[in-house]
Amino acid sequence: MIKINENYLKLQAGYLFPEVSRRVRAYQAKNPKAKIISLGIGDVTQPLAPAVISAMKKAVDEMAKAETFRGYGPEQGYDFLINAIIENDFNARGVTVEPGEVFISDGAKCDTGNIQEVFGLDNVVAVTDPVYPVYVDTNVMAGRTGPVSKKGQYEKIVYMPCTAENNFVPDLPTEAVDIIYLCFPNNPTGAVASKEVLGKWVDFARDNRAVILFDAAYEAFITDPDIPHSIYEIDGAKDVAIEFRSFSKTAGFTGVRCAFTIVPKHLKAYTGDGRGVEVNPLWNRRHCTKFNGASYISQAGAAAIYTPQGRKQVRKIIDIYMNNAALIRESLAKLGYEVYGGVNAPYIWMRTPDDLGSWQFFDRLLTNANVVGTPGVGFGAAGEGYLRLTAFARPADTKEALQRIANNL
Amino acid sequence: MIKINENYLKLQAGYLFPEVSRRVRAYQAKNPKAKIISLGIGDVTQPLAPAVISAMKKAVDEMAKAETFRGYGPEQGYDFLINAIIENDFNARGVTVEPGEVFISDGAKCDTGNIQEVFGLDNVVAVTDPVYPVYVDTNVMAGRTGPVSKKGQYEKIVYMPCTAENNFVPDLPTEAVDIIYLCFPNNPTGAVASKEVLGKWVDFARDNRAVILFDAAYEAFITDPDIPHSIYEIDGAKDVAIEFRSFSKTAGFTGVRCAFTIVPKHLKAYTGDGRGVEVNPLWNRRHCTKFNGASYISQAGAAAIYTPQGRKQVRKIIDIYMNNAALIRESLAKLGYEVYGGVNAPYIWMRTPDDLGSWQFFDRLLTNANVVGTPGVGFGAAGEGYLRLTAFARPADTKEALQRIANNL
Repeated sequence: MIKINENYLKLQAGYLFPEVSRRVRAYQAKNPKAKIISLGIGDVTQPLAPAVISAMKKAVDEMAKAETFRGYGPEQGYDFLINAIIENDFNARGVTVEPGEVFISDGAKCDTGNIQEVFGLDNVVAVTDPVYPVYVDTNVMAGRTGPVSKKGQYEKIVYMPCTAENNFVPDLPTEAVDIIYLCFPNNPTGAVASKEVLGKWVDFARDNRAVILFDAAYEAFITDPDIPHSIYEIDGAKDVAIEFRSFSKTAGFTGVRCAFTIVPKHLKAYTGDGRGVEVNPLWNRRHCTKFNGASYISQAGAAAIYTPQGRKQVRKIIDIYMNNAALIRESLAKLGYEVYGGVNAPYIWMRTPDDLGSWQFFDRLLTNANVVGTPGVGFGAAGEGYLRLTAFARPADTKEALQRIANNL
Repeated sequence: MIKINENYLKLQAGYLFPEVSRRVRAYQAKNPKAKIISLGIGDVTQPLAPAVISAMKKAVDEMAKAETFRGYGPEQGYDFLINAIIENDFNARGVTVEPGEVFISDGAKCDTGNIQEVFGLDNVVAVTDPVYPVYVDTNVMAGRTGPVSKKGQYEKIVYMPCTAENNFVPDLPTEAVDIIYLCFPNNPTGAVASKEVLGKWVDFARDNRAVILFDAAYEAFITDPDIPHSIYEIDGAKDVAIEFRSFSKTAGFTGVRCAFTIVPKHLKAYTGDGRGVEVNPLWNRRHCTKFNGASYISQAGAAAIYTPQGRKQVRKIIDIYMNNAALIRESLAKLGYEVYGGVNAPYIWMRTPDDLGSWQFFDRLLTNANVVGTPGVGFGAAGEGYLRLTAFARPADTKEALQRIANNL
């Protein structure tokens, strides 16, 4: 008799974003004339950079001729993209990364979701609270947790609260943990980690033989020159950290699908009897067995981001979003709201007014201003009483949303 | 202390295709002038159909303008593609499939590799021997097997031999099995299953509450009108079978990445205490948690395959490959080789001459004719003494390869 993976039954119903969509659709159905503006789901709105468009068209043209047609590429990605990544994202910041350490994929959601597979089921997982739900749910599915509590927390997972009190940077765990998910610039709080902070985490991981899964999907939004873009800017990090990057937010690739993961060659995990095993070949094996390479067209587009023209064009797009972020932050602060983030990240994390719950404030915002945010509690118990706004809407919409909030809330 | 997933250590070293590549590279390095022709890895060579090219260019153009830009699409895929699939691949053959049963992805390798996640670790897996290695390796990684034997078989997996004696269609298992992988038209043997054969399997699965994972990635190559293209052409199959399809071989999408999986809504698996649970929502949850939709450009290209023009163009490409298949089959038969497949499938399964092992014959073919095949034993113990040739090379190369075999072997 075929048995299900019963771990799936532990999952809380209603993944955050589908629930947001459901409420928005229900409101729109009842109020067909309402012009709803979404500052909710973190999807981009600016078109792709011209350099990316030409590169993708050229790639499509190549696929039309037998001489230049490309079938299966290397599962790990094309060298032209891997080399551009290494040179621009790492070497330029003084970080050494080898080609065999870079794995191109179709998304950081996939990579951050899949990486746990190469680790044992008996590892203790630590996540920040609030947290990107994918880190937690994929561990629930795998069976690394117990059931969920009323508070929405899973047994066996170590939650590290991030609040205004600790500047949304978690304190080091006091209990033994093995897999630590960190995301800086942070989704959803918009917080960043200084070199000093990351240094403490790297030391902690080295001392405790833990691994850090470092999600740097938003590094392109860092404006402060002192904030590290890669965890590998910290000495010794390559022994303990896997880093995830994405072109989704950097270059508007949410619909194009391209990302990459760095698995350092010397990073080790251990067998039950304490023997060190390099993780890179395990991940490579997984990647080659369950994945067949990102679309050549997407990879060609991604490589164009690293050309001089592409860099300029992408920078301009990011500036548009960061202007939005500044406008949201400043307008809300002027209205007396307590706001965080939005300086080195495209996310603004606002405290709900009047002690409202996150979903209550979500509903008020939707009803009174026809503006969609993302309820902070959807990211974890410590997110209750917060709402996430994103800087990814069009500037005119962002402006209008803020005016409506000023007038109607 | 971070522990690895020790199941990975059970995996046999050297995934088949990388090992083939390694040997070819080594031979080429020693013989730089040799013009090697590959009839080995199943990668296509014909350029994309013009209808696909225009659709993808149009899609790229849309991404260049804010009004038509597309970010995240539905994780399950766009309706325009789902509806085209349902109408053309299923309704046209008298099969009812609902939109919520179709999941667009970036590859059938991913889907056939990932599907096992929604099932419990205590299920018994049955695979044919020879078999596409992904089915086995992903179950090894998950922990559904014991260690590997000298013969290359994993403990706890039920291997169902496919030989000339049973026409490469496996006999029904005599022991209890829960997850049954079937692939027709078959990779690597090129065998097909009649309605009668599939009917027996569906009955078996229904009687034993097993699930059939039916890989139909090669259905477009069926020429015999009596052979079913979908397992859902069999009554009752929607209660017990999940079907995988791909645009990779059908339309040359190996570098573009688009495929889909059908998870029927009424298909159930069971909890330990016997409660039936619908699998569709579990797979949907996995898909939405670990995947973010296939590239919009790839999906737009895939939809063009279903236009009247696209269908004609794709048919022409398939005919080119099937002419190759006929040529390989007939030429080798004329030379006295024992050959199977190649009529309803792009694969030819040949018995090695002189009682050679698969890898021995691989090396002889590479050395004497500079032709690359895939050693049958790489697909399983019962594949020893066979070699797989594919119909995907260019016609001129295929012809030359066969002439070399005629002259030099």
